[in-house]
Amino acid sequence: MPELRKDPIVGRWVIIATDRAKRPVAPKLEPPLAAGACPFCEGNEDKTPHEILAYRDRNTRHNEKGWRVRVVPNKFPALQIEGDLNKRGEGIYDKMNGVGAHEVIIECPFHEISIANLGEENIREILWVYRDRLVDLKKDPRLVYGMLFKNVGAAAGASVEHSHSQLIVTPIVPINVWEEMTGSLEFFNYRGRCIYCDMIHQELASEKRIVLDTANFIAFAPYASRFPFETWILPKNHNSHFENIQKTEVDELGTVLKTILLKLEVALDKPAYNYIIHTSPFDTQALPHYHWHIEVIPRLTRVAGFEWGTGFYINPVPPEQAAGYLRETEVDLTVKQKRSGS
Amino acid sequence: MPELRKDPIVGRWVIIATDRAKRPVAPKLEPPLAAGACPFCEGNEDKTPHEILAYRDRNTRHNEKGWRVRVVPNKFPALQIEGDLNKRGEGIYDKMNGVGAHEVIIECPFHEISIANLGEENIREILWVYRDRLVDLKKDPRLVYGMLFKNVGAAAGASVEHSHSQLIVTPIVPINVWEEMTGSLEFFNYRGRCIYCDMIHQELASEKRIVLDTANFIAFAPYASRFPFETWILPKNHNSHFENIQKTEVDELGTVLKTILLKLEVALDKPAYNYIIHTSPFDTQALPHYHWHIEVIPRLTRVAGFEWGTGFYINPVPPEQAAGYLRETEVDLTVKQKRSGS
Repeated sequence: MPELRKDPIVGRWVIIATDRAKRPVAPKLEPPLAAGACPFCEGNEDKTPHEILAYRDRNTRHNEKGWRVRVVPNKFPALQIEGDLNKRGEGIYDKMNGVGAHEVIIECPFHEISIANLGEENIREILWVYRDRLVDLKKDPRLVYGMLFKNVGAAAGASVEHSHSQLIVTPIVPINVWEEMTGSLEFFNYRGRCIYCDMIHQELASEKRIVLDTANFIAFAPYASRFPFETWILPKNHNSHFENIQKTEVDELGTVLKTILLKLEVALDKPAYNYIIHTSPFDTQALPHYHWHIEVIPRLTRVAGFEWGTGFYINPVPPEQAAGYLRETEVDLTVKQKRSGS
Repeated sequence: MPELRKDPIVGRWVIIATDRAKRPVAPKLEPPLAAGACPFCEGNEDKTPHEILAYRDRNTRHNEKGWRVRVVPNKFPALQIEGDLNKRGEGIYDKMNGVGAHEVIIECPFHEISIANLGEENIREILWVYRDRLVDLKKDPRLVYGMLFKNVGAAAGASVEHSHSQLIVTPIVPINVWEEMTGSLEFFNYRGRCIYCDMIHQELASEKRIVLDTANFIAFAPYASRFPFETWILPKNHNSHFENIQKTEVDELGTVLKTILLKLEVALDKPAYNYIIHTSPFDTQALPHYHWHIEVIPRLTRVAGFEWGTGFYINPVPPEQAAGYLRETEVDLTVKQKRSGS
């Protein structure tokens, strides 16, 4: 059973995941697999744990071909779904059992390595899967936060090539989320407005950091970007919980996400990147001060000692410059990838 | 002039360092230099900016041979020493000029890439240089924090091979330092004790996470280690400011630091790593609640989307196991490196 331990000084939790020791310490992209050997490809359903959810064609069966998007437990889970939290102390230290969920969302049945090459309808279904999993896991009273994220490329921590994202659900509100929650609440208490809504207004007015502006979404390089070409995608209508997204928004977000990721791929020559969906904790109602969003972080620079020590980031590319470049980068949304068997 | 910008939600500052754009975006270890081409080697003093401080042999001159440890401004500084802060707003955003210092401490005149291979007396002089620079820069009322750190290996963000460390001095207390300060103050207000002193007592009593225990220092794998083989070095006597270190402590720390870094090199086959000196802000007197220390972080795992999003870390190696392994790793402190010309 993995263990959750709290740093007694700053209150940060870590997962001491002894079972993952079986996994290589430094994740590397696996060597190109022989045709048909990828565990995420159609036809290899027996190479993954049993599926939790799949969007399937009619008359196809669980754990067999015929799915379009498929969710399975992570083979090397950071947290385990069974068991009690058993919160306890050890002198000045605090710990609990590593209870939670760790799932993999396999984004397409064929061996495509970039989500940006998938069709818009496929990406919409991925977004629906994200939502369905959050709604389902929210029912478990032991769990309070669901973090959806994607690692692309070895430099971003990916260990499998086939396009996929992950969901880790924790029994603790993560410290970074907590800081966003309290920071935005402070602003709300002072000004009576959502700080993210204010940012959207200011960005739309100044225009210089905008990458994409559609009916329901805005994508921009944040004013205090930590990383070159960091890009945030926010819904224009205030909403604290990703899982409360409207269908018209999902329809549009499929196109927006594809466009932004394609722009990054073209502008930066297929960089390693992460994206992360920031949303509200499970145990909250609609919040007037928080606003769900997606942060896309290309991994072009390495984080060094200074950043670890201080939490200061050194960004050599001003966001105005990055946004201008991405804005002008033209992309073609048509799908070139043939849907072949794996 | 670089710009300091504040994230309005979580209060994190970033340095938008436009001048560093001239530097490669992804730092890589430079290709092995032709003999004598390393800018940090003795004889190449004209390839660096003018020295700020050097410990020199008698009768040698500034910016010429004869130094043992040498401090120069960083050629691509993240912050600039000239100018006013000129704090100002931009709508909901806050910024100021990127005023500060960014210095490089060249640790030896010959081309040695590992500080662990330097003699103990050499390492002691490096520690004295660290102290002298903090004491000097503290006099500047615009500056409030000095972060000393070392990047070793490309995976840890190093771009030059020759053994060196860096000092970045900022006009803002960095957010991570602020969190340590407020976290330890909270503990002090509640219990009337320094939390770091409490940790030292508990670690000495339990023994299982200790790597090294000397008269004046303790090195251990912290209970909530974020990374495999993360190791902290703390002075046993309470002291909030590194620059107030006693001479007997410097004498001992030279040996302790060398031993710990050698153990990591032997145990992990010369890993990339960072070390960072955590100390108190310039504008504080001796603090009863804070305790300076060194954090050594081997960079074996990559930080992926989940860690960026949450601030949760997944550590596959329990600190008890890492400490046991390092404790048993035997090292030889004698210096094998010949002191040859570059």
